[in-house]
Amino acid sequence: MDRDNILLTPGPLTTTLRTKLAMLKDWGSWDSDFNALTAKLRQQLLDIINDQGHYVVVPLQGSGTFSVEAAIATIVPKGGHLLVLDNGAYCKRMAKLSNMMGRKTTILSQIEQEPIDPDTVKAALQADPTITHVGFIHCETGTGIINPLVAISELCKAFNVGLIVDAMSSFGALPIDSQDVTFDALISASGKCLEGVPGMGFVFIRKAILAKCANNSHSLVLDLYDQHLYMERTGQWRFTPPTHVVAALAEAVQQFIEEGGQVARLARYTENCKMLLDGLSEQGLKPFLNPDYISPIIITFLAPTSPNYDFKTFYNDIKSQGFMLYPGKLTDIETFRIGCIGAIGSKEIRQVVDTIKYCMQKMKIN
Amino acid sequence: MDRDNILLTPGPLTTTLRTKLAMLKDWGSWDSDFNALTAKLRQQLLDIINDQGHYVVVPLQGSGTFSVEAAIATIVPKGGHLLVLDNGAYCKRMAKLSNMMGRKTTILSQIEQEPIDPDTVKAALQADPTITHVGFIHCETGTGIINPLVAISELCKAFNVGLIVDAMSSFGALPIDSQDVTFDALISASGKCLEGVPGMGFVFIRKAILAKCANNSHSLVLDLYDQHLYMERTGQWRFTPPTHVVAALAEAVQQFIEEGGQVARLARYTENCKMLLDGLSEQGLKPFLNPDYISPIIITFLAPTSPNYDFKTFYNDIKSQGFMLYPGKLTDIETFRIGCIGAIGSKEIRQVVDTIKYCMQKMKIN
Repeated sequence: MDRDNILLTPGPLTTTLRTKLAMLKDWGSWDSDFNALTAKLRQQLLDIINDQGHYVVVPLQGSGTFSVEAAIATIVPKGGHLLVLDNGAYCKRMAKLSNMMGRKTTILSQIEQEPIDPDTVKAALQADPTITHVGFIHCETGTGIINPLVAISELCKAFNVGLIVDAMSSFGALPIDSQDVTFDALISASGKCLEGVPGMGFVFIRKAILAKCANNSHSLVLDLYDQHLYMERTGQWRFTPPTHVVAALAEAVQQFIEEGGQVARLARYTENCKMLLDGLSEQGLKPFLNPDYISPIIITFLAPTSPNYDFKTFYNDIKSQGFMLYPGKLTDIETFRIGCIGAIGSKEIRQVVDTIKYCMQKMKIN
Repeated sequence: MDRDNILLTPGPLTTTLRTKLAMLKDWGSWDSDFNALTAKLRQQLLDIINDQGHYVVVPLQGSGTFSVEAAIATIVPKGGHLLVLDNGAYCKRMAKLSNMMGRKTTILSQIEQEPIDPDTVKAALQADPTITHVGFIHCETGTGIINPLVAISELCKAFNVGLIVDAMSSFGALPIDSQDVTFDALISASGKCLEGVPGMGFVFIRKAILAKCANNSHSLVLDLYDQHLYMERTGQWRFTPPTHVVAALAEAVQQFIEEGGQVARLARYTENCKMLLDGLSEQGLKPFLNPDYISPIIITFLAPTSPNYDFKTFYNDIKSQGFMLYPGKLTDIETFRIGCIGAIGSKEIRQVVDTIKYCMQKMKIN
């Protein structure tokens, strides 16, 4: 039997044994003990955005994309108009699901190599006063780029439009302080930088807009207004919660707090990122993005140009040594990705850099 | 520290340690090992309905209700007309979500105390030829009643309307053989009679109708057509799967097969059910349903009439002894429910009967 592989992916990722051990218990989803677990977790999530009583957080079953669709369905009224700021694969997905549910959706496309430019957004908002909401991805994991959350939030405030932030891959690692940014909804999930296991998302919603969200949703299961109302009234999830996933996330958040919260997590991921960039640059591997734009979440590397390179072989070779990389998500350029997140630190990063060097030599790739 | 409680609930339920231990590993959701796990699990699920190549099974993230909404969204076209056969809480939920997504929905209500009457359904289908689909709940856990799957399937065939079966609580325990019943979609979930942990559902879809299901769904995440297409093409889930929940279900299904499949599981649950009915009848506790209609899934008991009875106290007393019951779901009559399902057998049932007797004496009920 092999040891478990180390995941260098954007999630699901490597979690601590302590987090996984929290799943060795069956909870009654109706029971007060489980309600208390949910309530404590929700409060801890609100603390991470430094909430001063202006937000609620609504957990939802399913993957992160379920929570993105739920957020738009719940926040953007049927007559609303969503402007999606697009510089990667996940923004395109946001626009697609908004379109499918029948919301008027406009896509503002920019190049993938650069962060969203606030001036372009400003021009779009000036040009079309029917826009009611802006949606974008904080850290676009297609490339790993970070988009300017504070600047876009300021713009939305100035134009009096709602803001929906997909913070799936950034929440818990990059600073998101509700004193510095205002949003209608901000979305993340269990299996990302909080280092839980996948199976649930959660959406922060501004209290001031919550009351207007009744009957917006096209879907029963994705209705966060109803989900929130039910949870406030009963302490329970509206439909069967993924109890073991919730318990793992609660344990993961406990470790997040013990580690020193977002600041400590960012420091660890930043160190991981720096070691990867430095170590692989010695192997001649270059990042796709300008180094100024790289997030400490996931790095897109240009594939080696050697004719001996082929991703499948490269991936399987490195996997056979105990590490799992991630494929690229760009259409035009061949790339692969390496995640900096999860329960991994300098030890694992040093080892994966060594392993990549070893495998490149074996494959005769310089 | 207390020992873990035994759950006597309709799910989440008590699972084996072996099932939970399968969650102590992090899987790469993109990786071939996880794809192989998913593929094997899907084939085993098809084997349970004795598929002869006419069905596919599409897993979906989220609770069982997510899969019910997804099945209706995917199967019933936007111009379709769904007749929901209603004799309990879960049929009402099915009608609600169908209405919310904009499908024309007619509810055929019958009393909760009796199974759906096929003659009434026949009359409804005769009276309204615009009906394109029938939806109903195989085992309505609101009361625990079993509805006549084969008879309704025959009717739908005769009237050439599609059939959508919510078999959430029955699948794996009650016989469902695709040689005996024809359906367009049949839905269940991980945390029910297969004895996995909650967090995913799965929908069997008849191949003959699958091609017509493109673009039916109002929702990206709930589109089972797209989910299936992507999985067939890549071997992967379309959006991040709840990897640990999938691994636990795979391990649970392995144990299901080792136990002797559906026949053995039904035998164990039937014995659990009989012991509960006999044991509690000695305490003067009577089931809500006519004994002929009771399923070996969950039993609804009438609350004791003694003025000393109060559910909260009763529940907490029994919980303090290590067992978790389930509240009633009827509006008019006070009841409580006891599940027969999960990794429990005669030993646990004998103990819970003893415990209920002990707590009733302590509370001075009869």
